[in-house]
Amino acid sequence: MRHNLFPILVIMATLSVKGEIIFRTVEYKQAGTLLEGLSVYDDSIQGKRPAVLVVHQWKGLGDYEKKRAEMLARLGYNVFAADIYGQGVRPQTPSEAGAQAGKYRNDRALLRARVRAGLDVLARHELTDPKRIAAIGYCFGGTTVLELARSGADLAGIVSFHGGLSSSTPGDARNIKAKVLALHGADDPNVPPKEVAAFEEEMRQAGVDWQLVAYGGAVHAFTDWDAGNDNSKGVAYNERADRRSWEAMKQFFAELFK
Amino acid sequence: MRHNLFPILVIMATLSVKGEIIFRTVEYKQAGTLLEGLSVYDDSIQGKRPAVLVVHQWKGLGDYEKKRAEMLARLGYNVFAADIYGQGVRPQTPSEAGAQAGKYRNDRALLRARVRAGLDVLARHELTDPKRIAAIGYCFGGTTVLELARSGADLAGIVSFHGGLSSSTPGDARNIKAKVLALHGADDPNVPPKEVAAFEEEMRQAGVDWQLVAYGGAVHAFTDWDAGNDNSKGVAYNERADRRSWEAMKQFFAELFK
Repeated sequence: MRHNLFPILVIMATLSVKGEIIFRTVEYKQAGTLLEGLSVYDDSIQGKRPAVLVVHQWKGLGDYEKKRAEMLARLGYNVFAADIYGQGVRPQTPSEAGAQAGKYRNDRALLRARVRAGLDVLARHELTDPKRIAAIGYCFGGTTVLELARSGADLAGIVSFHGGLSSSTPGDARNIKAKVLALHGADDPNVPPKEVAAFEEEMRQAGVDWQLVAYGGAVHAFTDWDAGNDNSKGVAYNERADRRSWEAMKQFFAELFK
Repeated sequence: MRHNLFPILVIMATLSVKGEIIFRTVEYKQAGTLLEGLSVYDDSIQGKRPAVLVVHQWKGLGDYEKKRAEMLARLGYNVFAADIYGQGVRPQTPSEAGAQAGKYRNDRALLRARVRAGLDVLARHELTDPKRIAAIGYCFGGTTVLELARSGADLAGIVSFHGGLSSSTPGDARNIKAKVLALHGADDPNVPPKEVAAFEEEMRQAGVDWQLVAYGGAVHAFTDWDAGNDNSKGVAYNERADRRSWEAMKQFFAELFK
């Protein structure tokens, strides 16, 4: 009896793992520009669920964001990894990435429009509970989700992982409806203490519900597995800060979506 | 049948609640001074367990710390609420409390000796797993557990809730073995940005495993239910920051004691 049951159980387990996480490329537009995002969800969960928008680092939507989206889908969220740069625009070098990121950092209106288009895709998705949406972003994406919040987007919360925190229009923080969680490498040379202090003052003046976690020993890109481990470069993976910041995000979502 | 069962169930439930959490007053000494702490644990759990030292606010060990100790015991920890001031020394007014706290803040060697005596009681307790001990403190107690860490105490971690972060001997941070978590009200006038920056630099220079969470909108004593709700006084309870900081501590302990 037990001998006969064994192969059936193995087949069931295999099917379950294979069928679980769905990845779908989604083409969408912002003012005529074609964008290519990625929809990711767990197919074994039924019905509408809280949703998370993921915004990419300066090299554009790639394997890193796909992996994060998968991790979020496994937590039960309906996920959309947005594309800010446009279909096919995936910088390969730091210099190209810097040029792309710089273009949007210097045109916050365009940045807001691009991320807004991604949020709209997620909000309209059949599996999204439209009252329970958060946005997270890494580096450039952290800056981007903060801009999305500053635009007044109707989000439950946003999480910035080692994102730039500056604003050219700090008064816009008064539009923020989302709860804000900034996860910051305490030794990040890209986001120096002066920028952190200005961000805190911006949030304070606007009465935002905000928190900032500073991770000791962490530099820029501390969650990026491909960032190496040389802190002296100012950019490095930090396993401890990665793990802790992911847990902080999970705790934050548990509060937002309870 | 149901009618007859009802009183028995009520009695059982009462016994269960009554028998769960044990509170025991413990007298102990530091260099001839008699101290009176409180041992708290869940009697329904068997054997050794991770242990947490709790250090009081500026008014000395009282109902607030007893309640926190009970909350920790319900999480499964063996808890000892230490007494820094001495048996019967329980200031009733802010002025008396300020005098007591100031005495120890200005004599860090004595402060370390007093808290060390409490740690020894906890470490020797039959229910303590001596390799898994953390210390937490509120306000003055936050300063105290940081000093305990700076003394080189063999702790898994320490958590400061709205504690003062200054040090008269920042070089001592090199002795720190504990992981450090500082939970800070971003608008705390008692712990201004300059003090936070000096603390971060102290931790950075010493290579400590440290984290600091800044809670927007929170002033001093944000976890103290009796602190009122008027932020303009610089001291106020903040339900949101209280809840979040407690969760951050739980998450930290989960990492320390896994």
